[in-house]
Amino acid sequence: MKLLSPDELETALRDIGARRYHRLHPFHHLLHGGKCTKGQVQAWALNRYYYQAMIPVKDASLIARCTDADIRREWRRRMVDHDGTQPGEGGIARWLKLTDGLGLDRDYVTSLAGILPATKFAVDAYVHFVAEKTLLEAIASSLTEMFSPVIISERMAGMLANYDFITRETLSYFDKRPPQAQRDADFALNFVKRDARTPQQQQAVLAALEFKCSILWSMLDALYHAYVSPGHVPPGAFVPEDR
Amino acid sequence: MKLLSPDELETALRDIGARRYHRLHPFHHLLHGGKCTKGQVQAWALNRYYYQAMIPVKDASLIARCTDADIRREWRRRMVDHDGTQPGEGGIARWLKLTDGLGLDRDYVTSLAGILPATKFAVDAYVHFVAEKTLLEAIASSLTEMFSPVIISERMAGMLANYDFITRETLSYFDKRPPQAQRDADFALNFVKRDARTPQQQQAVLAALEFKCSILWSMLDALYHAYVSPGHVPPGAFVPEDR
Repeated sequence: MKLLSPDELETALRDIGARRYHRLHPFHHLLHGGKCTKGQVQAWALNRYYYQAMIPVKDASLIARCTDADIRREWRRRMVDHDGTQPGEGGIARWLKLTDGLGLDRDYVTSLAGILPATKFAVDAYVHFVAEKTLLEAIASSLTEMFSPVIISERMAGMLANYDFITRETLSYFDKRPPQAQRDADFALNFVKRDARTPQQQQAVLAALEFKCSILWSMLDALYHAYVSPGHVPPGAFVPEDR
Repeated sequence: MKLLSPDELETALRDIGARRYHRLHPFHHLLHGGKCTKGQVQAWALNRYYYQAMIPVKDASLIARCTDADIRREWRRRMVDHDGTQPGEGGIARWLKLTDGLGLDRDYVTSLAGILPATKFAVDAYVHFVAEKTLLEAIASSLTEMFSPVIISERMAGMLANYDFITRETLSYFDKRPPQAQRDADFALNFVKRDARTPQQQQAVLAALEFKCSILWSMLDALYHAYVSPGHVPPGAFVPEDR
């Protein structure tokens, strides 16, 4: 292991994204390319809701172990983005507009009764990672946001063009996200470039981003297996009406 | 919710097993029926190794929160079963005989480098569950052992009959397990029948067993998706030579 310059570290992080980010997953090609049934889009939105719902919990657990007020203040913006300042605002509420628009019952969505166990295990693994690893690794695990503006623009264009049950209004979550994600990714990237000062720390940063990519990837693997491959919905999970 | 008698609780637990235990999973039908390639059997043994390796950690975390010496002593037997009394003994060492016999490099297996992320997330979810839930729920989550003697006898007969790369020696793990599992399951079942005294506690016991079934099920879903469905091995995971 050799010490990378900050720019070499950034290059190595971008290389992980180019190879492992879930934009490359077959489920996303189906989703964006208009090849999903409505039931498959419902399953995706239902499962992804749990990820959205846990993001502020993950962010709070990061802040809870941070002794630097500057970082706490900066990171708190993420909680505002997701939870809003009053009921009905913020990213989670906007995600529920998507599940509403897809015809899913809101109580059913928020009950989590129909999500895939694999979704729960993956999201919980992310929450535990952030709570248990170093602050540097916890911050590095957020760096998938470096790659999210591109996937979000592909997703909006593809879904609006291909699905008559999707409207700009139901996709309002994605309208708001790119500038937030860009700001958050810039902060986190600058932090790890500045604070990963040994080869060991840099390797931990790279491993944290790989870990996070594997979270997002395994969520789509589980969706693909359950809802694209025929006959594999696990016991108790959501069964689309069009199936 | 009504209060169940101890025998009604046992009936409800056995009903969960009849509907959700991974004996019903398509991957097990392939594995036991001789329909797996050697590479698929390798992938199964490699991934299941992580489950085996974490069982004593899970059991120690249960003992760590238990103030009753009788239960601690009883539960400690499980650690002896899995870790043995010296190097080379115990269930984990016997599992490595299986991976050895399948031609997998032992350092590669124990490094965990090739396991599916979904395997890691599922096993870790089980470890966290046992560490974080009530002692009653932690004990109840072990109750899949009520159903394991049957699956183990099916597995041994099916694998010995169908695969020329499997010998009785490589399956020595399964030779030892049924009496241990029976003893452990009897203890845990008697414990929950005696200690789940309210409808809420009984529902928590039932939910704990459903949770554990979903752990085992999702591990096989991930194997099936990666190694039976064509073309879905996630980035970085084991790739069999016969693929």
